[in-house]
Amino acid sequence: MNLGALGFLITDSAKIPFSLLVVFTSAKLMSEILERLDQPGIVGEILAGVLIGPSVLGWVAPSDFLSALADLGAMFLLFRVGLEVKYSELLKVSGAAAIVAALGVISTFGLVWAVLALWGAPPKETIFVAAALVATSVGITAQVLAAKNLLALAASRIILAAAVIDDVLGLIVLAIVSSVVRGRWNLLELLATTGLALGFTAIVAWWGPRAVGVMVPRLNEKLRAAEGQFILALILMFLFSVLAVYSGIAAIVGAFLAGMALAEHTDPHCRDLAQGVSDFLVPFFLAVIGLNVNLSVFSGASTLLLTLAVLCAVVFSKVLGCGLGAISLGRVDALRIGVGMIPRGEVCMAVARLGLTLGIIRQSMYSAVVFVTVAAAALAPPLLHLVFRDFRKPGVPKPEMYRLG
Amino acid sequence: MNLGALGFLITDSAKIPFSLLVVFTSAKLMSEILERLDQPGIVGEILAGVLIGPSVLGWVAPSDFLSALADLGAMFLLFRVGLEVKYSELLKVSGAAAIVAALGVISTFGLVWAVLALWGAPPKETIFVAAALVATSVGITAQVLAAKNLLALAASRIILAAAVIDDVLGLIVLAIVSSVVRGRWNLLELLATTGLALGFTAIVAWWGPRAVGVMVPRLNEKLRAAEGQFILALILMFLFSVLAVYSGIAAIVGAFLAGMALAEHTDPHCRDLAQGVSDFLVPFFLAVIGLNVNLSVFSGASTLLLTLAVLCAVVFSKVLGCGLGAISLGRVDALRIGVGMIPRGEVCMAVARLGLTLGIIRQSMYSAVVFVTVAAAALAPPLLHLVFRDFRKPGVPKPEMYRLG
Repeated sequence: MNLGALGFLITDSAKIPFSLLVVFTSAKLMSEILERLDQPGIVGEILAGVLIGPSVLGWVAPSDFLSALADLGAMFLLFRVGLEVKYSELLKVSGAAAIVAALGVISTFGLVWAVLALWGAPPKETIFVAAALVATSVGITAQVLAAKNLLALAASRIILAAAVIDDVLGLIVLAIVSSVVRGRWNLLELLATTGLALGFTAIVAWWGPRAVGVMVPRLNEKLRAAEGQFILALILMFLFSVLAVYSGIAAIVGAFLAGMALAEHTDPHCRDLAQGVSDFLVPFFLAVIGLNVNLSVFSGASTLLLTLAVLCAVVFSKVLGCGLGAISLGRVDALRIGVGMIPRGEVCMAVARLGLTLGIIRQSMYSAVVFVTVAAAALAPPLLHLVFRDFRKPGVPKPEMYRLG
Repeated sequence: MNLGALGFLITDSAKIPFSLLVVFTSAKLMSEILERLDQPGIVGEILAGVLIGPSVLGWVAPSDFLSALADLGAMFLLFRVGLEVKYSELLKVSGAAAIVAALGVISTFGLVWAVLALWGAPPKETIFVAAALVATSVGITAQVLAAKNLLALAASRIILAAAVIDDVLGLIVLAIVSSVVRGRWNLLELLATTGLALGFTAIVAWWGPRAVGVMVPRLNEKLRAAEGQFILALILMFLFSVLAVYSGIAAIVGAFLAGMALAEHTDPHCRDLAQGVSDFLVPFFLAVIGLNVNLSVFSGASTLLLTLAVLCAVVFSKVLGCGLGAISLGRVDALRIGVGMIPRGEVCMAVARLGLTLGIIRQSMYSAVVFVTVAAAALAPPLLHLVFRDFRKPGVPKPEMYRLG
């Protein structure tokens, strides 16, 4: 047999197992090393992506397959976090969360705009980049809080609720900025976009848990399939993710709302099944963040300086803006909430890529935005580790539940 | 905001959740319908793929993303089946399984060769197609047996062991046929290929469980990560899959061997986590089989007739060949084993595609091979349902364990 003849067959079918092996193993290995250094393991999983990615070792390149696994990982992560959150408790904090989200969005937009304007970037690029960087991506924070068993804290609830509201606000900001950049306003379209996003979120958050509470147990009784509850849960998650995307907000927000709708109607076995999927996929979500790092921002002193300035703006704006919004809870919780809102995610990269495609954002600025997004995601876990240090060990008695006035 | 400007962003990010929703929901819906008609649900999941695929409704087309999920689904399915199989029990039946596998491979090659030769296909095409169709793909059978709680039966063990051996034999047949087709023999390469495949399987089957038995508990004790056992299990599965592919055999055989190596060292919680992943992914494995159906084989009476003749050859050769190999267990079990060996899988399609690329197999013959592969996979569950009808209900007391002399 000429192995060459079958060579492509082997190489082709090895690609998937090979990338699974390398990404998963290195993520878990780095996580273990970081944990032993008393650092959050999640940083290790992101660093593993940087290490094996094109910037350093070049063992694995970002691919459609890995991106798809990463997207799935983020969906299952937020879904599982949603399962731990009772709708009624999130509703209680929705007022506080709205203020946190709004101040975070405003301060990020303002601060990033100021940095870029001072640096002398073109006005259109300036407002487009500022708009791209407003949206918090709650995946990283959710993972840290879940790993530390802190989802029941009032501060955690506010972060989760604020992240959902933040996503809707981010969409509105993007809609306005798109109009400004294109130089023509269409108030009707703007209102329609906003209305759709708000409508979806409000309807799902309000009616979801009620409808699910009635339907899921009944359907489950009638189903012949084994694990009917888990199957229904997955279908609901996919459905809400699709609806979220078509409403203009992120798929992970839909997955979170689906989890929340199911929170009071799933048994521990169903949670174990969902946990299996997220344990498998979340390392890909984290490592792929690292794979996207492009170290070309370090090629010139000027680009590097700008990138670091934008990174500072992106970090401090959320800490100050969101913290200010939550100051009534006391300084400690205000800081925790501010830090929890730091991470940015795929939405920022996708909007920046849109700007690149439209010719509004230059390639160097695009690389800077991607770097800032990844760096903000990687900075958040150690900072969260610091501000939540009173609750460091998972498994210790649950922290006292805060009461909101 | 001009939605058109962001339109591609929405469409692009909706693609993954949309295909997840449509494929998973339709698979589970059709499964439910078939179960209510007292047919195996697995057929419904395959039919769902045919229905939503390009041949009928055209809602979803085969894509790299769905193929990747399908491959992952098959890997996790076989991994989970491996977890239920004790190595020592598989070893007991390895002699019987080797005869079953060998007779199945020989009779399939002979019968398909005869059909195509009688029909007047070119000699090279004839032997290449015959070689492509020898390999049983155990995924479908494993899923049926697992769903019916029948993995502990002696007949089930023989099917699993025979499927592993079958994969090695299939590789050897393919190696020989490639040499013949190319008109030059290289005995050294042939021996190397065979030796590698046999060596990997033997070493992993022999040493895997022992090495794992020593290493996994020790490593797990030292790991700080939550769910260390599950993480180690996944890493082992990915590693064995990669090694299997590089040895020339299918990734799912590697995943099965990894599961088997772990069978005696995993707790129920770890199995639940693995089950969650396979519950999520297996419907994609099944539906994607259906998506690949190409109804163009029905365009001409001659092609149709040939396709049906090959299908009959593919089905009866395993029932008769494997059945004959297992006749010492009595007629009932011989029939069960023969039927269990019917399904074919991705390996057949991949080899046929190789033949197409090399110009040995014509397009119409390629479509016929794909159709036969899918049809054999879809026929197996109802036939298995029939021959295992004494053990129809899952959850009833476990069937008496057969003893092998």
